[in-house]
Amino acid sequence: MAPSTAFSAVSVIRSDVDRELSDFCAEHRVRLLEIGPELAPAMDSLEAIVSGGKRLRPTFAYWGWRGAGGAEGDARMIRAASSLELLQACALVHDDVIDNSDTRRGAPATHKRMARLHADEGWSGDSDGFGRGAAILIGDLCLTWSDEMYQACGFVPRTLQDGRGPFDAMRTEVMAGQYLDTLEQVRGTATREAALRVMRYKTAAYTVERPLHLGAALAGRGDELAEVYTDYGIPLGIAFQLRDDLLGVFGDPSTMGKPAGDDLREGKRTLVVAETLARSGETDAERFRSLLGAPDLSTDSVEWMCSLVESSGALAACESLVEDYSEQALAALESPELDEGARGPLRELVVAATRRSH
Amino acid sequence: MAPSTAFSAVSVIRSDVDRELSDFCAEHRVRLLEIGPELAPAMDSLEAIVSGGKRLRPTFAYWGWRGAGGAEGDARMIRAASSLELLQACALVHDDVIDNSDTRRGAPATHKRMARLHADEGWSGDSDGFGRGAAILIGDLCLTWSDEMYQACGFVPRTLQDGRGPFDAMRTEVMAGQYLDTLEQVRGTATREAALRVMRYKTAAYTVERPLHLGAALAGRGDELAEVYTDYGIPLGIAFQLRDDLLGVFGDPSTMGKPAGDDLREGKRTLVVAETLARSGETDAERFRSLLGAPDLSTDSVEWMCSLVESSGALAACESLVEDYSEQALAALESPELDEGARGPLRELVVAATRRSH
Repeated sequence: MAPSTAFSAVSVIRSDVDRELSDFCAEHRVRLLEIGPELAPAMDSLEAIVSGGKRLRPTFAYWGWRGAGGAEGDARMIRAASSLELLQACALVHDDVIDNSDTRRGAPATHKRMARLHADEGWSGDSDGFGRGAAILIGDLCLTWSDEMYQACGFVPRTLQDGRGPFDAMRTEVMAGQYLDTLEQVRGTATREAALRVMRYKTAAYTVERPLHLGAALAGRGDELAEVYTDYGIPLGIAFQLRDDLLGVFGDPSTMGKPAGDDLREGKRTLVVAETLARSGETDAERFRSLLGAPDLSTDSVEWMCSLVESSGALAACESLVEDYSEQALAALESPELDEGARGPLRELVVAATRRSH
Repeated sequence: MAPSTAFSAVSVIRSDVDRELSDFCAEHRVRLLEIGPELAPAMDSLEAIVSGGKRLRPTFAYWGWRGAGGAEGDARMIRAASSLELLQACALVHDDVIDNSDTRRGAPATHKRMARLHADEGWSGDSDGFGRGAAILIGDLCLTWSDEMYQACGFVPRTLQDGRGPFDAMRTEVMAGQYLDTLEQVRGTATREAALRVMRYKTAAYTVERPLHLGAALAGRGDELAEVYTDYGIPLGIAFQLRDDLLGVFGDPSTMGKPAGDDLREGKRTLVVAETLARSGETDAERFRSLLGAPDLSTDSVEWMCSLVESSGALAACESLVEDYSEQALAALESPELDEGARGPLRELVVAATRRSH
């Protein structure tokens, strides 16, 4: 399958999602600036985050809808799906504060951008503190606007209520997953089980499973498709996160992506790390562990760590897991519950999410 | 009017609100701990915040409902009203991170509590950073659970949708108000106009006006009562905040309250400060301004500042504003749109909110 074909399932609603979000933001900018024109830079930062990204969650929500027999290009569904990007914007803005990350998608993180505004304006007090505070509030706005957009998407209230189960579950799960992730970093557990649990909640449920459930619920077939979408969504989400973690170690060849060793510098306790530690001898594991999370990690150290991931067999094991999970996801698509027209696109999404180089 | 009578309008639904929140939290604790038992301390911190407070917003929502003809003690309305306390919990937890406040209601702020957990457990990395990150996520959970509780309160979906206008407006307004407040602190504007705008959005709309609008909308009379509740709610909310600001300068005699000079140490640009600066000579104003926000402010300096608030005429002006705004709020209650049975309690709430000593 050629890459251009592989991405068609993703790109089919992308411009619609972009437009819905841009309309929503334009309308809310007016409301916000009526409260105070000084809110403009906060709104600019919010829109900068909302305008980017691969629109993965809306895409899965849309195909969850189509797979449950929902009509092609339904404007209400596109708006409901778009609302997930505001939730994602909150997650990104707050995660960057929590992880103290300087950049996001090659640009300054929201709290850094707001800290720079503080410094440029010569305001009193601590620029970093102001930036963090502003980013917390910008994330909060995204979070409330997400369910505001969802509730206003145009479905009748009864249908919206049917979608609240997956909508609410995905919000609790991503926050719980992020908390557990933060906890794993400071506890330094680095076991396979711990890494898999974080992947399940922070990525697989949040990015794939729940958006699919939401689409099915809005199409009135939430119960019938719950199991298929879990069987497809959880392994696919884990495979997707594993691919992301491998890129976080070995680097992302795309211009906007991560440099090699980025996750190692951040000290992320990923499954790649857990596999490496579990498969290495005492001495190597100890050295790897001591280097993990060092912010001034040298290029030599990164190279040594990468080579241990490879020589320990962790890289091959992870690649093989990506394959296995992808196969599981594909197998779930055989279910007769699934609408025929969505099977091809959902298959393409497995390829797009797990074989991507960026 | 005796103080005990003055508080009856507040206390009438208080135990119901406490019970609804406690039931909601118990149920969500189970769900959260299924994701990971290590989430227990985060849930403990969340419940500690949710279990306290004066329940002002639910009280105004309930009397907004009653004033629009809603039935006494309606369980759906009490749950909808209680959901506002989860929004308030988010506001408190996030504000304490933003303002870097160590305590809340005499106990450690949520981020401090979580930082202590980190230190006690001997986890790696920075305890304060972990505490802040955990508090951001705990606040996010409160925020999503607020609208989850609202949507699940038992009203039919069509009625819930009617309430979304005020529900959504109050969330945007409190966040915008908090951002403007943060901005005023770092810009050091300290004009009356700036202080009044923050009071309007961060307190008056959020604490009084919008909860009343919500109650009226859920009773199906949102449009008819919108104006009365704005005319009552905005001045009352400003009077309430002014009383709070005066307590923040001169101290709160209640054991759990603020010590004298607390707001002066924090450098809050309140209307009390704006009035003091506007009414003082150049030299005094300059000295006051230079002391404002000094974290190591001496008792002598606090005393000097308090005496300037008094001698400049700012204290008397603010007390007189509290009276004027209270009168405006009371006058709005004469509207024939208002259900007779709610007039007395809404009058009591003016007294309770503006004459309180804590």
